[in-house]
Amino acid sequence: MKIALDAMGGDHAPMVNIVGAKDALALYPKITKLFLVGDEDTLKASCKEHGLTDQRVEIIHASQVVEMHESGAKTLRSKKDSSISVATSLVKSGDADAVISAGNTGAAVAAATLKLRTLKGVERAGIASPIPNEHGICNLLDAGANPEAKPEHLVTYAVMGSIYAKQVIGVKDPIVGLMSNGEEDEKGTTFTKETFALLRQLEATGKAPFKFKGNVEGHDLFQTKLDVILTDGFTGNIILKTCEATAKAMSKWLKLEFKRSPFRLLGAAMAKGAFKSVKERSSYESYGGSPLLGVNGVCIIAHGGSSALAMQNAIRVGMETVEQGVNPHIEEALAALQ
Amino acid sequence: MKIALDAMGGDHAPMVNIVGAKDALALYPKITKLFLVGDEDTLKASCKEHGLTDQRVEIIHASQVVEMHESGAKTLRSKKDSSISVATSLVKSGDADAVISAGNTGAAVAAATLKLRTLKGVERAGIASPIPNEHGICNLLDAGANPEAKPEHLVTYAVMGSIYAKQVIGVKDPIVGLMSNGEEDEKGTTFTKETFALLRQLEATGKAPFKFKGNVEGHDLFQTKLDVILTDGFTGNIILKTCEATAKAMSKWLKLEFKRSPFRLLGAAMAKGAFKSVKERSSYESYGGSPLLGVNGVCIIAHGGSSALAMQNAIRVGMETVEQGVNPHIEEALAALQ
Repeated sequence: MKIALDAMGGDHAPMVNIVGAKDALALYPKITKLFLVGDEDTLKASCKEHGLTDQRVEIIHASQVVEMHESGAKTLRSKKDSSISVATSLVKSGDADAVISAGNTGAAVAAATLKLRTLKGVERAGIASPIPNEHGICNLLDAGANPEAKPEHLVTYAVMGSIYAKQVIGVKDPIVGLMSNGEEDEKGTTFTKETFALLRQLEATGKAPFKFKGNVEGHDLFQTKLDVILTDGFTGNIILKTCEATAKAMSKWLKLEFKRSPFRLLGAAMAKGAFKSVKERSSYESYGGSPLLGVNGVCIIAHGGSSALAMQNAIRVGMETVEQGVNPHIEEALAALQ
Repeated sequence: MKIALDAMGGDHAPMVNIVGAKDALALYPKITKLFLVGDEDTLKASCKEHGLTDQRVEIIHASQVVEMHESGAKTLRSKKDSSISVATSLVKSGDADAVISAGNTGAAVAAATLKLRTLKGVERAGIASPIPNEHGICNLLDAGANPEAKPEHLVTYAVMGSIYAKQVIGVKDPIVGLMSNGEEDEKGTTFTKETFALLRQLEATGKAPFKFKGNVEGHDLFQTKLDVILTDGFTGNIILKTCEATAKAMSKWLKLEFKRSPFRLLGAAMAKGAFKSVKERSSYESYGGSPLLGVNGVCIIAHGGSSALAMQNAIRVGMETVEQGVNPHIEEALAALQ
């Protein structure tokens, strides 16, 4: 298993990328090669600083970085020697099996789409972002690759997300829901209504690799047995960020309230383990990365604010996606619908 | 002040409506009349059960109810004697100053739009839903009245939301943000980009009653000094429900974790006051209701799951909106832009 890591991508790069890589190498002997892509001098110094001396590491120089605030797709074209571009090329050339990036999402999606191309039958790739649902992992798809999706894109996402759930998460009969502004069949916009009709049509043919649950709402993200929740990339991105922001605000307000009395602070300290467990359960760190489904190769999008643990887990998700051979199964499932 | 309450609307109607009305009447002597609209026998029995004997109460019979799962606008036309329809008519006829409903949102919006009509210069009404921001109340607008909004609608919402913030919340110089999938100016969809350009244009004329902050994201809901966050009703509805669902999930998981040890449970009990404060701060119960801005009258949309406290606060929001004369100020602000 050969991994290409965009070592310059993310808010805390290259430090967390290097430490995450080191931890992943220690945990996963299956990794035979780990390419660290980015400025050679910076990465050499960072490896030295963090004690990453593993022989499986190879630094690949890339002189540029697509910054987080830059327009991803546009900047990618002008910065030909950016770390995300060079890392993705390693998958294209077959030198690596998967590329992992916590950098500019738009740039990572554009690099994967342009260099690896989409799978047969796939018009647009989509990011499957894991949500900690009570019944297991539920993937929000698309979490931001395709903000102005068409109904047909969401149908492809339903197939891809289901195959991912089957192959990687081990779900037998995936259930797919469509995010809407109400659970009744008639709720939604022109876009979601068209998507709804297409999904019902596909289900009726008996060829869909999933059961379509219909429209779903906010509370279904966490409470309802669902493997995939479909949405356009604009709404999906906002949903993810809203979940994260709400959890952070709640946690911050609780801390402020605890501080209002020593008695409360003591109580909170006694219950500390509970807070830690919930944080672990709800944090993206534990999941690590979201596969970009639909490209001809494996590309894992990690959170921009990734910690070393998140990077390590993103590498793990990349390995699992490669191991389970998701892409051939997606092409097969899409071909079966024709 | 005369209030028309849809006494049959909401998941826990009429019980919470009656108790909420009783509490509001006790707190607000300014209320000279409170119409309870719904099935007469049911309401008489409920008033008796909950000890609502205030002389300011008048029951207005309405034989039908638009149920929560029904298509609001469509059902409104077929159920001419529904409680929301009759309650809204009381505002139209001038018998009441404000209508309050925790029932089917689509029906409440349709009733208000059809019966009261929109204000001069307003094409579509929008729901301003209060978000507990660290700097005060931030209104998410639109929270669900207009799922397929056009850019011009959002510009009107910016004006209406700013006037509401000025008049009712007492903000001197309202700040408006546009919800997008990234904070950079170039982020967004065709829809948000067009809206962005219109807002900048309006700001450049010097006539806008607000400062336009640009694109905002999930974390800005709670952390950034903003008075209005603009979005289409589809996304707004999903954002609200996602916030609520995340807070609920976090709270549920914490409780489960506390139960894993008596020591943790004791700690949680000691810090109980903190949990209560955060719940109060983050709950819609404390805010009570969201004004439907842009209709020629006052209509307050309460949460479907409203408790008696939420109903009482929805009545308060209705009173404040009437008292501050928001509508004439909105018409004036819109006329000034011409």
